Amino acid sequence: MQINSNYLNLQDSYLFSTIAKKVNAFQAANPQASIIRLGIGDVTLPLCDAVVQALHDAVSEMGVKETFKGYGPEQGYGFLKDAIQHYYASHGVTLKSDEIFISDGAKSDLGNILDIFGTDNVVLIPDPVYPVYVDTNVMAGRKVVFMNANAENGFLPLPDEKVKADLIYICSPNNPTGAVYNREQLKAWVDYANAQDAVILFDAAYECFVKDPALPRSIFEIEGARTCAIEFCSFSKIAGFTGTRCGYTVIPMELSRQGVALHKLWLRRQTTKFNGVPYIVQRGAAAVFTPEGQKQIQENLGYYMENAKIIADAMREMGIWFTGGEHSPYIWLKCPNNMGSWEFFDLLLEKANVVGTPGAGFGVNGEGFFRLTAFGDRENTKEAVARMKKLLAEL
Amino acid sequence: MQINSNYLNLQDSYLFSTIAKKVNAFQAANPQASIIRLGIGDVTLPLCDAVVQALHDAVSEMGVKETFKGYGPEQGYGFLKDAIQHYYASHGVTLKSDEIFISDGAKSDLGNILDIFGTDNVVLIPDPVYPVYVDTNVMAGRKVVFMNANAENGFLPLPDEKVKADLIYICSPNNPTGAVYNREQLKAWVDYANAQDAVILFDAAYECFVKDPALPRSIFEIEGARTCAIEFCSFSKIAGFTGTRCGYTVIPMELSRQGVALHKLWLRRQTTKFNGVPYIVQRGAAAVFTPEGQKQIQENLGYYMENAKIIADAMREMGIWFTGGEHSPYIWLKCPNNMGSWEFFDLLLEKANVVGTPGAGFGVNGEGFFRLTAFGDRENTKEAVARMKKLLAEL
Repeated sequence: MQINSNYLNLQDSYLFSTIAKKVNAFQAANPQASIIRLGIGDVTLPLCDAVVQALHDAVSEMGVKETFKGYGPEQGYGFLKDAIQHYYASHGVTLKSDEIFISDGAKSDLGNILDIFGTDNVVLIPDPVYPVYVDTNVMAGRKVVFMNANAENGFLPLPDEKVKADLIYICSPNNPTGAVYNREQLKAWVDYANAQDAVILFDAAYECFVKDPALPRSIFEIEGARTCAIEFCSFSKIAGFTGTRCGYTVIPMELSRQGVALHKLWLRRQTTKFNGVPYIVQRGAAAVFTPEGQKQIQENLGYYMENAKIIADAMREMGIWFTGGEHSPYIWLKCPNNMGSWEFFDLLLEKANVVGTPGAGFGVNGEGFFRLTAFGDRENTKEAVARMKKLLAEL
Repeated sequence: MQINSNYLNLQDSYLFSTIAKKVNAFQAANPQASIIRLGIGDVTLPLCDAVVQALHDAVSEMGVKETFKGYGPEQGYGFLKDAIQHYYASHGVTLKSDEIFISDGAKSDLGNILDIFGTDNVVLIPDPVYPVYVDTNVMAGRKVVFMNANAENGFLPLPDEKVKADLIYICSPNNPTGAVYNREQLKAWVDYANAQDAVILFDAAYECFVKDPALPRSIFEIEGARTCAIEFCSFSKIAGFTGTRCGYTVIPMELSRQGVALHKLWLRRQTTKFNGVPYIVQRGAAAVFTPEGQKQIQENLGYYMENAKIIADAMREMGIWFTGGEHSPYIWLKCPNNMGSWEFFDLLLEKANVVGTPGAGFGVNGEGFFRLTAFGDRENTKEAVARMKKLLAEL
């Protein structure tokens, strides 16, 4: 009996537990302090009315024999795949309904997709990065090569022809940096992947924050992507589904490697190791794309983006370099006075009672940077920004 | 770029699609025929009132900022883990709450658990069998050894000391055969696994159908199991959650291999590649264990078991050898007149307009056997049995 010994090569991630410990210790020592948290990437607004109503309706259906739903298709119900197909069409991307696979979230699919690839593939991952990309590949024993995202390239690294890679992770708008690739930059990645016979795993979880039509929301807006890319998306941010769990993965029919359609492999993976998303949740997700749903979620997204603007404006006012905040809920800032990530974390917590996320927690290139999120309350966001300004004026 | 070439070794499963094709063709040729389906293992009764009410309440919580839930713990909410802990305690099994991992279903976990094991392990699987056990191991390139379940051993194979195995699949009450191991038989498997340093993957999805307290519902009723077994269970059958999606996996703290706690590996797998079950669904699942929920689901289970009894009684009356039907929703019967599985399928469809599942679809030892399920309507079940009796009297 052997365990999967690759797991022993995983590094324990202490980022959010260390943050929690520090915050708890500070609060215990300073019970009167009113701490504002702009650290975690979780939403705070409730599900919109259209979604709530659709969920209630679906629950009622499940309680009546005539409308009860048992096992559904593992790849999702047609009504939801069709709604997503129309959503993509609305920003100019044509997909077949069967190219869309409904899942319980982008995190699951970003991990599980690796099942269909060989373990000898070389994986190219930006640094700083969402830790799941690295860990899921370490678990399978794949070789990981990092590409440097930094202030010089605006945290948007471009392909290096000298680097050979088989799987390439791109997240745009990016977590944690909020940086967004333009079409020309993504085209460079698509051309590189097609030339190298590589596959791009494109994380589009934050596409809903892109407001400038000049910026791509889907990699399938880029010519050539259908032969080299898989796209992962989620209802977590567009509709506050972090605790409701629904996402989807798009695999074009044309995408094949070694003569095998990846679409077919993923269908086989999902029908074997997955049993579909709850009918109730799929009905709630479909309501996101109704006229009422769209109106309501745009109000919620507008609320978060106004928070982002408040933070971004304050950064400009303070003369702090940053990325994000415009087409992203994240603001990735250079720590003032060349402080280290954790040094700034401690200062901000102790002197301004504001909690953010140290950039060093996302990779070596994150050192000296810091992430703030726009998912908080409006009043808290304003207050946090006011405290930061006061603190920096006193430095 | 390499695909996972193990996928090319998978056999396409045509079982249920072949059944559907044959049934559709027959219906098209005989539009007046009233076909009764006792083939698929899906439930037909709606969710019980206690669950429906809990789902509605949770949906309402998600629509209000103060009670909205974002990301939850990947391994499940305490309220549901505690409810499951008490459920196990009610049949004499003591678990720690943290030994229970909530998932979107037993099928997902039975596949995903393999992530934590090395690919060189030898896997022991009964034949006939739920196809997912085999396919998920073929996908990882593991060697599969089959053990024969047949009429001679009552479709309950016991360990053979001469066979060396690292991972052992046991499903009791069994799908597809409905056979149930007793304590002594399961003890033999536990002793074998401990002696071999193997791990038993125990599929308890049908435990709720066991009514005789002399029969084990959990492998953890067996002394020694905490050092060699992982148990998978589901709300699909106990509470009709096939389309609502919730299950759980139990890994004892003591279970370790190569000096590593499997509990810790699974926690790492789930926190990296999974984001938890919808809050709404977990609230619905917890309602199963309330006094009202228990009363209502026992009524539903009683309805199915009465169907099973109707089928089993008819088999006895017709002198047909079978397993299951008593502590299981499945009746696994020997085809009359030594017919082959598909031969009997065709006869039953054409002459009695009743659809079942040919045993040959579950493995070579299934040839000559046939599965009927108790998940249909009462009236349909009675009518199907009457038609079978009439057909066999005419043979």
